[in-house]
Amino acid sequence: MSFELTILGSSSALPTSKRFPAAHLLKVDERFFLIDCGEGTQIQLRKYGFNPSRIHRIFISHLHGDHVFGLFGLLSSLGMLGRKVPLHLYGPEKLSEMLHDHLKYFGPLPFELITYNPPKDADTPFFEDEKITVTAIPLKHRTKTYGYVFREKSRPLNLRKESIEQYGLGIADRVRIKQGADITLPDGRTIPNHLLTLPPYVPRSYAYISDTLFDPDLIPKIREVDLLYHETTFSGRDEKLAADTFHSTAPQAARMAKDAKAGKLLIGHFSSRYKDHTALVEEARELFSQTEGVSDGDVYSIPLRRSS
Amino acid sequence: MSFELTILGSSSALPTSKRFPAAHLLKVDERFFLIDCGEGTQIQLRKYGFNPSRIHRIFISHLHGDHVFGLFGLLSSLGMLGRKVPLHLYGPEKLSEMLHDHLKYFGPLPFELITYNPPKDADTPFFEDEKITVTAIPLKHRTKTYGYVFREKSRPLNLRKESIEQYGLGIADRVRIKQGADITLPDGRTIPNHLLTLPPYVPRSYAYISDTLFDPDLIPKIREVDLLYHETTFSGRDEKLAADTFHSTAPQAARMAKDAKAGKLLIGHFSSRYKDHTALVEEARELFSQTEGVSDGDVYSIPLRRSS
Repeated sequence: MSFELTILGSSSALPTSKRFPAAHLLKVDERFFLIDCGEGTQIQLRKYGFNPSRIHRIFISHLHGDHVFGLFGLLSSLGMLGRKVPLHLYGPEKLSEMLHDHLKYFGPLPFELITYNPPKDADTPFFEDEKITVTAIPLKHRTKTYGYVFREKSRPLNLRKESIEQYGLGIADRVRIKQGADITLPDGRTIPNHLLTLPPYVPRSYAYISDTLFDPDLIPKIREVDLLYHETTFSGRDEKLAADTFHSTAPQAARMAKDAKAGKLLIGHFSSRYKDHTALVEEARELFSQTEGVSDGDVYSIPLRRSS
Repeated sequence: MSFELTILGSSSALPTSKRFPAAHLLKVDERFFLIDCGEGTQIQLRKYGFNPSRIHRIFISHLHGDHVFGLFGLLSSLGMLGRKVPLHLYGPEKLSEMLHDHLKYFGPLPFELITYNPPKDADTPFFEDEKITVTAIPLKHRTKTYGYVFREKSRPLNLRKESIEQYGLGIADRVRIKQGADITLPDGRTIPNHLLTLPPYVPRSYAYISDTLFDPDLIPKIREVDLLYHETTFSGRDEKLAADTFHSTAPQAARMAKDAKAGKLLIGHFSSRYKDHTALVEEARELFSQTEGVSDGDVYSIPLRRSS
């Protein structure tokens, strides 16, 4: 029952020998979601112990090289590794056409590549299954760009095993109890639901805000996420430069986290002009103390906790 | 007066966390030639202390991803670094068209990209300037593939400074002496050339044989190179597999080096099926003792030496 984010790449557009371009891996139970795929992502996956073949869904924020150039090598390697099952790609409208053009030279692949465009209605999930919903949120960058919000679905009440056994309750009763019902026993006694159940686990959530102009309109979309990654290319001192290039500053990221009541703010994608990023982290912490500056290989795990 | 090869990537098609895909950097004096450009080449350049902006000529052996996917990020970064001077790319016929299609999505670049197809006549240099000649040699792989041979041009005789000063010889005499002439002094004495000169430096050379079926017909093209890199994807035990996939084995690479009278053989591009490459190096050394298995970051420098 894991909910674990691994930072595969934390550089901004120009990678360094220590920071690869943008790529995040979110593991939710046995689902591996790759979010952005900068150059070298397949190498980073191996470095941090992940088998690339386990990835089934990839979300691309936008078609700038530092967020997408690793797709070419990853797709090629998945083919060489013998992949047969489809790979699902979610991203901006031109992603499919771009890959099609690319594969004229480097394809075909031995597996199906299924691409999806973001839904027109922002409230429609971009992806969902029985456990998780992913929504796409339009960002303000120099090209069509999306952020992604991953939210676990509400979980049912958990049965108190010892009480269920004590009263000898069968399958039909158990289903009703999980839905919140009290139970009347054959002898007429009514057992209230709270004696039969534990509160459900709280759904966990992660929001990925890729390159964007500071945009407080996004706050309702990311409200109360446990983890918010927000690009922080610039220091607050360079706010004009951030606006001119459609990027955000450390204080702006902190403002987003604070107003959205996020659990923790992760910042990265620092411009290579700053040799030392601790100053940017400090700037953010002045507004939002639960801020961390990320490095490649960092892991953030959100434990299960019950609602009170 | 350097002639120095740095291995940037030595993996075969599937990179690992320790071996990046194919890329070599050859530095001849202040010329930086990049040979193949697998994914992550720009990161490797930085890791090993090279400024990517100093590269002016790139040679691509063939359009398989593990030899070319690093071009996308490198070109993009060169643009961001403010490059204005043209970049010259040498490679198979489809290289230009492939890049054109790619740049529909990720361009334009702020500098000119000039691409060259190999000359029809194999004896015509693919590139030359006053110091070096590069020839392309067609290899036998599953797609159009070229090896590249870098040879310094013959150097002139070197003047013995102390003799030139002793006899008070002017510019016109010095030019003639460098061409091998004896000199007659105003007093009638003739000074033989060998007293006025040192033998010239021996031209140095490097041959890069990318993925190919074993092909002894190449031997005349790479004769007596100082350094021969020859892909060695397979062990001699897997010779059939090598032939089926148009690759070479360690003993085949050694046979090429031996028959071409190469100075040193470098082998790499090992299949990831071999956990330990020392066995492949040993196989090659049985036929050609001056064999080395390369790793990312290895540097091979050929010192200047005078002809005897």
